[in-house]
Amino acid sequence: MERLAYFFGGGKADGNASMRELLGGKGANLAEMSRIGLPIPAGFTIPTTVCTYFMKHGGRYPHGLKEAVAENLRQVEEVMGKRFGDRANPLLVSVRSGARVSMPGMMDTVLNIGLNDETVEGLAGGDERFAFDCYRRLLQMYGDVVLGLKPEDDTTQDPFESIIWELKQSRGVTKDTELGIEDLKELVARFKALIREATGRDFPEDPHEQLWGAIEAVFKSWNNRRAIEYRRINNIPDEWGTAVNIQAMVFGNLGWDSGTGVAFTRNPATGENEFYGEYLLNAQGEDVVAGIRTPQPINNRQKGDSELPSLEEEMPEVYRQLLDVREKLEKHFKDMQDIEFTIEKGRLWVLQTRAGKRTGLAALRIAFDMYRQNLIDREIVMLRIEPDQLNHILRPVFDADEKEKAKREKRVIARGLNAGPGAATGKVVFSASRVKDYAERRQPVILVREETSPEDVGGMSVAEGILTARGGMTSHAALVARQLGKVCVVGCDALEINYEKLQMKVGEHIVKEGDFISIDGTTGEVILGKVPTVQSEIERVLVDKSLKPEESDTYKLYSTIMQWADELRRLKVRANADQPDQAAKAVAFGAEGIGLCRTEHMFFAADRINKVRQMILASDPAERREALAKIEPLQQEDFKEILRVMQGKPVTIRLLDPPLHEFLPKTDDEIAATAEEIGVSKDVIVEKTKALAEMNPMLGNRGCRLGITYPEIYDMQVRAIIGAACDLKMEDVEVIPEIMVPLVGEAKELAFIKLRAERTAREVMEARGIEVTYLIGTMVEVPRACITADEIARVAEFFSFGTNDLTQMAYGFSRDDTAPVIRRYLDVGILRHDPFEALDRAGVGGLMKLAVEKARKVRPDIKLGICGEHGGEPSSVEFCEQVGLDYVSCSPYRIPVAKLAAARAVLERTLSGVGQTT
Amino acid sequence: MERLAYFFGGGKADGNASMRELLGGKGANLAEMSRIGLPIPAGFTIPTTVCTYFMKHGGRYPHGLKEAVAENLRQVEEVMGKRFGDRANPLLVSVRSGARVSMPGMMDTVLNIGLNDETVEGLAGGDERFAFDCYRRLLQMYGDVVLGLKPEDDTTQDPFESIIWELKQSRGVTKDTELGIEDLKELVARFKALIREATGRDFPEDPHEQLWGAIEAVFKSWNNRRAIEYRRINNIPDEWGTAVNIQAMVFGNLGWDSGTGVAFTRNPATGENEFYGEYLLNAQGEDVVAGIRTPQPINNRQKGDSELPSLEEEMPEVYRQLLDVREKLEKHFKDMQDIEFTIEKGRLWVLQTRAGKRTGLAALRIAFDMYRQNLIDREIVMLRIEPDQLNHILRPVFDADEKEKAKREKRVIARGLNAGPGAATGKVVFSASRVKDYAERRQPVILVREETSPEDVGGMSVAEGILTARGGMTSHAALVARQLGKVCVVGCDALEINYEKLQMKVGEHIVKEGDFISIDGTTGEVILGKVPTVQSEIERVLVDKSLKPEESDTYKLYSTIMQWADELRRLKVRANADQPDQAAKAVAFGAEGIGLCRTEHMFFAADRINKVRQMILASDPAERREALAKIEPLQQEDFKEILRVMQGKPVTIRLLDPPLHEFLPKTDDEIAATAEEIGVSKDVIVEKTKALAEMNPMLGNRGCRLGITYPEIYDMQVRAIIGAACDLKMEDVEVIPEIMVPLVGEAKELAFIKLRAERTAREVMEARGIEVTYLIGTMVEVPRACITADEIARVAEFFSFGTNDLTQMAYGFSRDDTAPVIRRYLDVGILRHDPFEALDRAGVGGLMKLAVEKARKVRPDIKLGICGEHGGEPSSVEFCEQVGLDYVSCSPYRIPVAKLAAARAVLERTLSGVGQTT
Repeated sequence: MERLAYFFGGGKADGNASMRELLGGKGANLAEMSRIGLPIPAGFTIPTTVCTYFMKHGGRYPHGLKEAVAENLRQVEEVMGKRFGDRANPLLVSVRSGARVSMPGMMDTVLNIGLNDETVEGLAGGDERFAFDCYRRLLQMYGDVVLGLKPEDDTTQDPFESIIWELKQSRGVTKDTELGIEDLKELVARFKALIREATGRDFPEDPHEQLWGAIEAVFKSWNNRRAIEYRRINNIPDEWGTAVNIQAMVFGNLGWDSGTGVAFTRNPATGENEFYGEYLLNAQGEDVVAGIRTPQPINNRQKGDSELPSLEEEMPEVYRQLLDVREKLEKHFKDMQDIEFTIEKGRLWVLQTRAGKRTGLAALRIAFDMYRQNLIDREIVMLRIEPDQLNHILRPVFDADEKEKAKREKRVIARGLNAGPGAATGKVVFSASRVKDYAERRQPVILVREETSPEDVGGMSVAEGILTARGGMTSHAALVARQLGKVCVVGCDALEINYEKLQMKVGEHIVKEGDFISIDGTTGEVILGKVPTVQSEIERVLVDKSLKPEESDTYKLYSTIMQWADELRRLKVRANADQPDQAAKAVAFGAEGIGLCRTEHMFFAADRINKVRQMILASDPAERREALAKIEPLQQEDFKEILRVMQGKPVTIRLLDPPLHEFLPKTDDEIAATAEEIGVSKDVIVEKTKALAEMNPMLGNRGCRLGITYPEIYDMQVRAIIGAACDLKMEDVEVIPEIMVPLVGEAKELAFIKLRAERTAREVMEARGIEVTYLIGTMVEVPRACITADEIARVAEFFSFGTNDLTQMAYGFSRDDTAPVIRRYLDVGILRHDPFEALDRAGVGGLMKLAVEKARKVRPDIKLGICGEHGGEPSSVEFCEQVGLDYVSCSPYRIPVAKLAAARAVLERTLSGVGQTT
Repeated sequence: MERLAYFFGGGKADGNASMRELLGGKGANLAEMSRIGLPIPAGFTIPTTVCTYFMKHGGRYPHGLKEAVAENLRQVEEVMGKRFGDRANPLLVSVRSGARVSMPGMMDTVLNIGLNDETVEGLAGGDERFAFDCYRRLLQMYGDVVLGLKPEDDTTQDPFESIIWELKQSRGVTKDTELGIEDLKELVARFKALIREATGRDFPEDPHEQLWGAIEAVFKSWNNRRAIEYRRINNIPDEWGTAVNIQAMVFGNLGWDSGTGVAFTRNPATGENEFYGEYLLNAQGEDVVAGIRTPQPINNRQKGDSELPSLEEEMPEVYRQLLDVREKLEKHFKDMQDIEFTIEKGRLWVLQTRAGKRTGLAALRIAFDMYRQNLIDREIVMLRIEPDQLNHILRPVFDADEKEKAKREKRVIARGLNAGPGAATGKVVFSASRVKDYAERRQPVILVREETSPEDVGGMSVAEGILTARGGMTSHAALVARQLGKVCVVGCDALEINYEKLQMKVGEHIVKEGDFISIDGTTGEVILGKVPTVQSEIERVLVDKSLKPEESDTYKLYSTIMQWADELRRLKVRANADQPDQAAKAVAFGAEGIGLCRTEHMFFAADRINKVRQMILASDPAERREALAKIEPLQQEDFKEILRVMQGKPVTIRLLDPPLHEFLPKTDDEIAATAEEIGVSKDVIVEKTKALAEMNPMLGNRGCRLGITYPEIYDMQVRAIIGAACDLKMEDVEVIPEIMVPLVGEAKELAFIKLRAERTAREVMEARGIEVTYLIGTMVEVPRACITADEIARVAEFFSFGTNDLTQMAYGFSRDDTAPVIRRYLDVGILRHDPFEALDRAGVGGLMKLAVEKARKVRPDIKLGICGEHGGEPSSVEFCEQVGLDYVSCSPYRIPVAKLAAARAVLERTLSGVGQTT
């Protein structure tokens, strides 16, 4: 064992950022901050090796630790200008754990060490209330953590809290802050008595005894029950041990020459290169965040019309030091930083620094500014902009001032999941059919439903936004909204919708059909009344063409990053689009083809749904063929329009997928209307619905099973596709149709369908006297398809991974049912991400990898893509790059995100490649 | 190219059974039959190599084929004593395809070649009707197949059939057999005219031209559309080609010195060593099977009281030849054979021989008799008895005479799937609750339901048999019935059940509650009224002990085969059993432990279901714990009894698995009753039911997800298991509990539950001051668990493959919904077996293999088993042996089957090992 303590502070440090294993994450960061000259409170780290020694040797410390601690404490005293245990100007320290990886809340911390009946007077200076509050906190933490008075069982109350509660009761107050100085002194006395009674010993007045008690408690906390369980669940080796950080405490509430604040080295909202921050005098960190007092601006530029003095005015010297900190940080980290600082009696201390959170616009602007300043190069620019942030600059947004106003007016009445980013205002409507009535009168609508279903798609596509009471981030509403580019908030369980009364109750508010609400799909907020929005510049340039490229700075940044991404990425990016207008939007956003064109949405269109129902109600294949013959020309027209829009780019069309019962009418009224229109009795429809009902429709008669049970359906669809392609080719339009068979789990399923499809295609081409080239492939979305991918690849000319279903079947998680289970799993740490959002690399990804290897072995040039929702999610796109897919496909609005993610994936791979060789 | 034709007949042959690749399956078998001296009609085979040559060379034949055919035809004439084209005694031949593997119905056949206007008179002899019927058949087949007049499109009618139809119309008859000799002659004339008109050429009168036309047609049929499609779907290489078999035709309907028959070399029902068969004079093969004329016995021994003369009496010389054939066959094949023979004008011809189908009892007796005759050794005995056949001798069966009587009286009214073998008679009852009323009055009951659910288990367990209108071989009813050892017929869709009227309609019959019916679970038949049964001897010896072992010959055979299997097998065999009585039965049948004890069935017991409901309706964990505390002592008692029965043998107990909504009452009456009993409002139950409802319950909140969402439930179960184990250990009973966590897909799920379970177990053991050893493992039934099996094996001490769910999720097939899909797949050849019956080796098996490899890598001594329904299915057991599992677990009645299958799997592996090294 080498060094037993690593000092930091006063502009130097024994350690640095690379020493996480030895110093833990926290210790390594503190060392680095000191190294680059930030004025951090001095301290030292006892390394993890000491913890390991301690555990191996039954709680004994290595030889020399006492001396190392004493020596480092002396250095801390020197830097801080205070002495540990000094009556007049006492140094107080915190003792915290610090493991290699963050184990939030698992281990123990003790603050204010060094206080006793004497030093408390010295700390007090003019403010006894503050000093005794610190003291009683020390007693409580020390009692709980070091002396073990905290009950293991969560249901029993902490004995110190019981005393505080009793005292407040007797004083007739409810908040801790309402206790006076005498009350605090009484707490100190009663806490000491408790400790004496419970442990048979007095609270140690000796600061050194306090310190060693705390150090031992932290080491021991590595092996407390919660920590062990956390490690076992998260696969963290027990041998790693924890470091212990002992650091001087500083206080911003020691008078009007003290204070605390937060600052960003650049503007986090706009990205402008200006120092930006807020502070409060005589306050603690939490006071700034809590918003009880209005914080002051840090400089005059930012001050504007504010009457509050800025830090630049009140403490010019401290402000100058802060500017110096800003400069050092940007020079060192080459990124915008978010810092917390404290001023203790006129002296500046930096407590923390980290990369600052920013809006998408700010991310772009900061990265490009730094690129122009030669601080970073173009690869770093791409790594700095999170792909998802591109979304922020693509969608209409609420006017920031107006939203502030709504908040002040308490019009924000609920919050759900932010499923479709952007801002939308409209009249509340509770059914898809009524949406259209409003839309015809050109009135903006927010469709509000318990949850949505395929029948609602028509209504959704003309609504401004969608709000649901149930469902998660991958519910039907969320999925369709993202593809349609609609603002969407889902799973907002505060809504109590009453379809009969055409109203909903949200807390105390009643919202009726026709009332205006606004929803923020970026934050999940639901707001009463209108909130004006601003349309995104990118969309105005690319889709509307209402803005010239050169008029938009944001567009310039956007197009540069897209150009760089295009130069770098290997993965192609296609769009999921079912309609010609969606296809056109996809092309505007740079789609290189369509990766998933779902034919069922066409089946729901008003002009054909009853023909589809007639087909389903048919009693034999001949009758079914007759009904299909009526649908065919309409469907052919759909395909023709999409192929025309996408000319020269591949279009993957998926044959019918959902179970037939989804197309049948549900309510009595609909059944009656349908029965009349197609001329059957209502009983026929009711009987058919009963016959087709399934216990687990997700695992029922759908996908290619339909095409094998009722071959006429796929025959019709293939005729329509090839017919459309032939017609266009005769018009000299280039077409690349790819026919995709869903839900294949066995090669023979595909072989059966492919044989028929090829025969049908041949007939169509012969009848028209023209040849078109097309591919037949399959969606890989059933685990068995991955395991037998070699067999299937012998038949399939391409694979497209349908990772939504694959995730459902690999985990056995129904998307419609397991949202609460997944939430619980995220809560207790069993899952890190919702696997329907970010692709599960070990499980679903493992199946994909297997499939890719097996498929390439028998058909080396097989085209491989992904068309599940994951195709537009950055970490999933990275995985697709790693396993070597040819393309990803996502909703039109996600295309820029996917392109940037694809480029970053190449970069990450290149960089990790470099890492491996050096 | 070597030989161009392979002769067979007259006791010799150029080929033999091993030459399938060259001669096709049929040609190789004919050669072998001739070789061992069977009097088969002579013929020759043109090998597959000629077909390959023919295809490669644009329809040309290899040099020398003409000569080879001519020479072989000459040999055929010699053996048969007839001449091809001879007016007086013409040789007719058949021309058939014969590929390496059977391609049923895919390729073409032409019969009666050699007939023309002259030879037809010679064939006729005394019977012109017969001769002209042969002739018109030749014209039709030749026209369809050789001249290509058969329409490709299935919907257009065959032109020959049209002519027959017209003629029948004009004669006012409906059957072909009603046409007279003049009609047949007219058909011949009209068929010839059709051929002339359609092809511009006359039908070739020259027999040689006919022969070559047919040969060419068979070669070409290798490349007809149906055959190509069949090969592509079944992965048969196009290059294999087909052989062509040209064989002399013989006729059993050439007068009263001709005949045809079927014989078994031993009795296929009882296994007795007696020659057994039936024949008809002046008849064709189909006449024996069709049962229009009553067939005659072949020998006097078998004749009994029959007034019909035996073959032994009528044709003693032919019978002597047949005895000779029997002797040769048993000597050669060393197994009971089933032969078809024809007598043409006093001369015996054998047309086919194959191993004869037999009952389970016959299989045992024949194998052991041959063993005692030193014909076969003990390994062959084991290979001769299909494991499933053991089932036949285990269950009660209908008295054969009584069943015959029922058939004659037309009391067999429907037929379903034979889900639970055996025979049962009882009163029809339509609800599980009413079954108990009958059972209390000791009245035998057949429970008849649309389908069954877990609530019905109580009723099922006291019924004699179960009959359902819906569901397949792995439906709930089938599953539970097999485990309970109940006779069961499922999916009998002829039943129209009316629960309100307490009756069902079956065709024209109305069956009311209380009426007697009988069901045959071995054949799937449903019979009106009682049919007396006979109890199996094995069960009387092992379970009832009402028969002494030495009193039962069948038991002696059974116990010998079991002893041999025990000596040979490596796999352990456990039972799936939920109740002490099931466990006792399992032990009687030789179970070596319990592989699956489902705790949910205990939850449905009448004395606790409402406590379970109270637990589900609890509004918070505390209330839930309170309800669970009431269930705990009952559950502990259950476990104690099972562990006591199984003493010293491992018992795997699965923690609660089904979704909670399954336990809630369904009907209004039940809801009202429950509400009253547990003192809540009906609304509370309705609301909870709504809240717990799921779109896809199979993929919903069940399995370990329950244990993570409501940890109190598993806490209680673990306390009950460990408590029971401790109590028994204090009574000096040896216990080996294994706690199984269901539906794990991610290692952390199991880690979470295991931590809690270990803590709980420790508490229970500390409280009682005693230690028991137990394991915690998981059911592997989610595809993701297989892919991440290494992670999971770090936590799990054993794996038990739950192949029912694994099959559902690997394929994406819901057992409850996809029965019609699977039937369709079996029909069109996409599936060979229902994957819920026989384990799908490529897909589900591939996942298992992966899991075994990954698990053993991190935990080499991990215990591996299977507890899905496949654990008792022989081919699946073989697979389990191949991948190296430690045990299989199945329902008690399947134990002997699984044991024999396990022994056979060792044999098969050993034999194939020998094959590989030689």
